Amino acid sequence: MITLSSDFGSPYPAAMKGVVLQSTDARLVDVAHDFPRQNVPAAAFWLREVLPYFPPAVHLAVVDPGVGTDRAAVVVRAGKHAIVAPDNGVAVPAARRIDDDVEVFEISVDDPPSSTFHGRDVFAPAAADVHERGVDTFHQYPEYEQTTDYETVSFPDPDLAGGDVLGEVLVVDGFGNAVTNVPDRVLDRRFGGEIRVDGEVAPVARSYAHVDAGERLVTVGSHGNVELAANRGRGDEAFGVEPGDEVALSW
Amino acid sequence: MITLSSDFGSPYPAAMKGVVLQSTDARLVDVAHDFPRQNVPAAAFWLREVLPYFPPAVHLAVVDPGVGTDRAAVVVRAGKHAIVAPDNGVAVPAARRIDDDVEVFEISVDDPPSSTFHGRDVFAPAAADVHERGVDTFHQYPEYEQTTDYETVSFPDPDLAGGDVLGEVLVVDGFGNAVTNVPDRVLDRRFGGEIRVDGEVAPVARSYAHVDAGERLVTVGSHGNVELAANRGRGDEAFGVEPGDEVALSW
Amino acid sequence: MITLSSDFGSPYPAAMKGVVLQSTDARLVDVAHDFPRQNVPAAAFWLREVLPYFPPAVHLAVVDPGVGTDRAAVVVRAGKHAIVAPDNGVAVPAARRIDDDVEVFEISVDDPPSSTFHGRDVFAPAAADVHERGVDTFHQYPEYEQTTDYETVSFPDPDLAGGDVLGEVLVVDGFGNAVTNVPDRVLDRRFGGEIRVDGEVAPVARSYAHVDAGERLVTVGSHGNVELAANRGRGDEAFGVEPGDEVALSW
Repeated sequence: MITLSSDFGSPYPAAMKGVVLQSTDARLVDVAHDFPRQNVPAAAFWLREVLPYFPPAVHLAVVDPGVGTDRAAVVVRAGKHAIVAPDNGVAVPAARRIDDDVEVFEISVDDPPSSTFHGRDVFAPAAADVHERGVDTFHQYPEYEQTTDYETVSFPDPDLAGGDVLGEVLVVDGFGNAVTNVPDRVLDRRFGGEIRVDGEVAPVARSYAHVDAGERLVTVGSHGNVELAANRGRGDEAFGVEPGDEVALSW
Repeated sequence: MITLSSDFGSPYPAAMKGVVLQSTDARLVDVAHDFPRQNVPAAAFWLREVLPYFPPAVHLAVVDPGVGTDRAAVVVRAGKHAIVAPDNGVAVPAARRIDDDVEVFEISVDDPPSSTFHGRDVFAPAAADVHERGVDTFHQYPEYEQTTDYETVSFPDPDLAGGDVLGEVLVVDGFGNAVTNVPDRVLDRRFGGEIRVDGEVAPVARSYAHVDAGERLVTVGSHGNVELAANRGRGDEAFGVEPGDEVALSW
Repeated sequence: MITLSSDFGSPYPAAMKGVVLQSTDARLVDVAHDFPRQNVPAAAFWLREVLPYFPPAVHLAVVDPGVGTDRAAVVVRAGKHAIVAPDNGVAVPAARRIDDDVEVFEISVDDPPSSTFHGRDVFAPAAADVHERGVDTFHQYPEYEQTTDYETVSFPDPDLAGGDVLGEVLVVDGFGNAVTNVPDRVLDRRFGGEIRVDGEVAPVARSYAHVDAGERLVTVGSHGNVELAANRGRGDEAFGVEPGDEVALSW
């Protein structure tokens, strides 16, 4: 099985699929091709939240603002999974979430046909190759050279030490839910009560429909993080936040 | 075969696919993940128009504004098809269109990991389970309890009794075609002629290109309903209508 | 393998998939369903850029502003590939790019159930039929009649004869890259230098990240054409161009 993720929109991912299918009969599964454009941290976040739900697979993940520069191509092995990606850190949080057993290999790349579409010309053939060789064979092939010098993406830690909790909005999903970096345990035993978000009171609820339509709420999203939401509305607009904004939670 | 439908946008459907593929090798086919957000009647309409074209399959259909409340999870069997969905009626019109032989079972659900993403935590594993057990075996398993107390969605009937036909816009598709609840037979023998829509004259044509580019027309859509359209344009804008609007057709 | 392309958005492509799967177990691969609406030349361009990357396949390609008129349905065989499409030229540039060995057959069509959705009622069953019969058997079946009288789409040629190069913007992709009809060789040995686009100076670079974020550049896209782009921005906006605009390149 090979999953595909990118910020390519359409129809560029189909060219990747065609190339992959030139050399493998693997099942292909699209994860997303509408990650925020050239936004490596956002893609790293979503890959971390989604890829661990798959059975062992090769994951092709291309968000690549540095295409055509000298950034390397890597395959990040995590247990029985392997993520083929540019060496910009996009794959690392997902790999670490999948398994503690992580190794990174730089992929030897011949001069590709284009300087602007390595998803098609570099990463797609590499993903097919990894799938056909198997994810536990990298040490046998000189095209894969293990490295400890690779890029990572890290997410800001919330400040849980003081009276207030100081967090940050990491991403906003398509529903408008503003996903923070604050862990769910901050809301333990507070469901049904209230919280202050940047000083303004909001209800704490287990899910959206526990408040009236259009009303805002603070809940725990499916990723286990505190989320600013609105029932049948957009949380980002209801709370006036966007990715990167700081959020202070208090009682 | 398992089809997937939701209003989840991206990348949440991929988490459902990962979970499904943990326990089945079934073919997966996306129906749509951009149904109007949390709009159960619109999703019910589109499922009714699309699912009957599939060969026997398990259909995972999650438009679930009540996620995290006490609404049940159901599987609606229709002939050799089964639709796994929240008990909000979204699956019922499609099931009845597929086959007269419809049974509904409530699915026993353990406490799910999240309160906000039952597509991943409840419905995806249930769809895989239904696929692996087979759609004709529900009576053998205590996890599936037949019920006659389930939610339905019904669409408004047009008023065909008077001189005018009084209908309603059910949905607007991506082309801007405004799909009404008025059956095609109202236009029998009127193609090539004219009709009044809310008093304003418009041509009746078999398809879009029978009028000039930019011109509006009244036609019969692929679902067999009267549709307000525009050739190479948007019918909803050309007629000034949106879902829920009443439409009077006269001659 | 059957690929699917259209301007149908969602969920209409799923009805095509259901129909196809009624009569074949072929792998289905989506190419794109968001081609610019009813824009045959744009779809023809993208099909030409993407389909050749696939291994031999049947390609279902429906951008069909003339649906319900008397335009024919065709299958365009190109080597071991076959493209099933309306006879409006959308398939021809891709076929010629795939292989010099091109034949066109008109498909006999019974009276279809709808006049507005031949993707589902005509082209999907035809694609499944072509897949099951095999792409080298058309001459055996009376339902496929070879024809030399078929529609084509051609793209404007650039004027490379004078001091300036006069080209045209063919399409704008989802990133905002404005793809011209000017071949890459015009930029040979100019990378790292400058060029004038409609009189205004811009850098020539091998890829986006060779200029600062937000800066515009002229590069060669993955299709081998000169492209007007912006690093982490939209080239169409940065250069003020849209499809159909003339572009003068000079030094």
